[in-house]
Amino acid sequence: MAVERPRLLTPGPVNLHPAAIESLARPQLHHRSPEAAALVRGLRARLARLLGTHGEVLLVGGSGTAAMEAAVRALFPSGARVWVPVAGKFSERWAEIARSAGLDPVVSEHPWGAAVRPEDLPQTRTDGALLTHSETSTGVLHPVRELASAVRARDPEAVVVVDAVTSFLLTPLQLEAWGLDAAVSGSQKGLMSPPGLAFVGLAPRALERLRPAGYYLDLVRERSAQREGQTAFTPPMQVVEAVHAVLEALGLKRRADLEVYGRRKAAANARFYGLGEALGLRPVPEGREVQSPATAAFYLPEGLGYAELSAAFAGRGWRIAGGQGPLKGRIFRVSAMGHFEPGELERAYTDFSRLLRPA
Amino acid sequence: MAVERPRLLTPGPVNLHPAAIESLARPQLHHRSPEAAALVRGLRARLARLLGTHGEVLLVGGSGTAAMEAAVRALFPSGARVWVPVAGKFSERWAEIARSAGLDPVVSEHPWGAAVRPEDLPQTRTDGALLTHSETSTGVLHPVRELASAVRARDPEAVVVVDAVTSFLLTPLQLEAWGLDAAVSGSQKGLMSPPGLAFVGLAPRALERLRPAGYYLDLVRERSAQREGQTAFTPPMQVVEAVHAVLEALGLKRRADLEVYGRRKAAANARFYGLGEALGLRPVPEGREVQSPATAAFYLPEGLGYAELSAAFAGRGWRIAGGQGPLKGRIFRVSAMGHFEPGELERAYTDFSRLLRPA
Repeated sequence: MAVERPRLLTPGPVNLHPAAIESLARPQLHHRSPEAAALVRGLRARLARLLGTHGEVLLVGGSGTAAMEAAVRALFPSGARVWVPVAGKFSERWAEIARSAGLDPVVSEHPWGAAVRPEDLPQTRTDGALLTHSETSTGVLHPVRELASAVRARDPEAVVVVDAVTSFLLTPLQLEAWGLDAAVSGSQKGLMSPPGLAFVGLAPRALERLRPAGYYLDLVRERSAQREGQTAFTPPMQVVEAVHAVLEALGLKRRADLEVYGRRKAAANARFYGLGEALGLRPVPEGREVQSPATAAFYLPEGLGYAELSAAFAGRGWRIAGGQGPLKGRIFRVSAMGHFEPGELERAYTDFSRLLRPA
Repeated sequence: MAVERPRLLTPGPVNLHPAAIESLARPQLHHRSPEAAALVRGLRARLARLLGTHGEVLLVGGSGTAAMEAAVRALFPSGARVWVPVAGKFSERWAEIARSAGLDPVVSEHPWGAAVRPEDLPQTRTDGALLTHSETSTGVLHPVRELASAVRARDPEAVVVVDAVTSFLLTPLQLEAWGLDAAVSGSQKGLMSPPGLAFVGLAPRALERLRPAGYYLDLVRERSAQREGQTAFTPPMQVVEAVHAVLEALGLKRRADLEVYGRRKAAANARFYGLGEALGLRPVPEGREVQSPATAAFYLPEGLGYAELSAAFAGRGWRIAGGQGPLKGRIFRVSAMGHFEPGELERAYTDFSRLLRPA
């Protein structure tokens, strides 16, 4: 167990922020204590401000997928028709969750690597849409603001839910101002904390529409409990503390604080795109303007297998990610989303260029 | 934030084991790495041995309630009739989960503090039973082995599921030998780890019967993934590591290892019962033979409010627990389930006796 662990260049989980690591070393806090209630209240309010909503954020103990399912079941009745533009593994997951919840997803299929466009909206009335902001499997940032406008221009009552799992903190996102009803994210991506805590941001309109659904993932139950600073069930308290500590350390209190921070993180990730393109690599996202700030995805150069490239990065102390679904074995992905010690990211760029230099 | 935190005498969460704390300080492990797969495999196999099953253990990212719901939905079709003997907050939860999953619970009501008896089994055919081993809200250890025998003597195909959230590691429990089909538990009780990881132990018969249900809590999906050392979704990897580290540090590899360990923990908890009874306090469990090793629950002495007692313990650096549901404001609860430094538990006993000495 003394073997050194690779540092993560993966698009989640990521290297923990030192404030998260420090907070994990604290003694167990009882979730029914006043200190825990203050933390839950404070974190919910801060996350709501960062998501640009006057609604509320509800915490969910589980992965981002748990929050995706909780949002779908709380916001749509069985039989509801929802547009799901599928262009990667995580948009596919929206469709699977919608089906498992008894919804009637209207799926439009798009090439993995393409950004969905407003004109892709199918010619059929819908009750809502399940959109993906940063599609982690392709490195594409979808124009959710424009997509939401198109949906709501046609169906004003449509409920628009966004998967912001890897986009949160890294790129602008605002609920009310963008016409979004809900956004979900989790602890182990831009928040640089351990996995285990997810959350659903709900604009006021969505907050009123919540319907009870299931038991553990029931957002109506959580809304009642969390308004009292409680959670319905034992929360992953260490992760609540870690996320709070990271936001505090980064000085991210309100949405305006995100601008400079997001630009810096986006630039760090864009550097991988720049280096790759200079080396002749083909990015997966079709167009520079749709490259996600959360991950840089490239097709593998001719003659280089993913196993070989991954092993070469491992030899330099890095873990990278491969492709998923139809892109498995065809692409590789890196990310600057996590925490890096001084000089560490420079070393990553250097290794990237060396390992991918054409033979 | 520099205020010292109280040490926990609560029946979960509990003071973390040093091995858990140490493991939390390690760098983030990627859940798709070979090291993570080995950990997941090893932990599942070890938990299965400790639960006395040749079946499998499936990990669930969430609280114990998440695992309770996952087990109910995976093991019973909508409309199934299940016996739910209710004698406390957590057996009430079984009934709520059964209803929310569309089952037809046959609820028998028992006094909070009484142990359910085999003769309480209702005179009606059922498809299964949802039992509570250690009822944390009352401190009662229910005779699940005898209850399961009664259920299966009448309905051999009945599926018996046990909430072992606070009994696991502290008192004997065996799936196949006791005629149990499934047992659920979590990380933040006897395992002395952070909250966030739950699990379902499934005997071979139950493992074959799993049906797909929902998405995030779907055990069929988890069975496929976890047989490959994966989990379907990002797991709370830090907690997986912590639980593994604690079991390793305690030397708990197989069921036989639990005997001495369980006796020691049970004796530590029984000491609270002994001290309380010597002080004239009335235990909540009706009879010494049904006192749970996970928590000691007493009625508050005349003239002493819970807030006052709780504050007195807090003044000595301890956090205790109050009553829930109909017992709220009428009882208090302590527990020796967690980790205590040398001499610390003796100090707890001394404080307990001093603070509860009749005026």
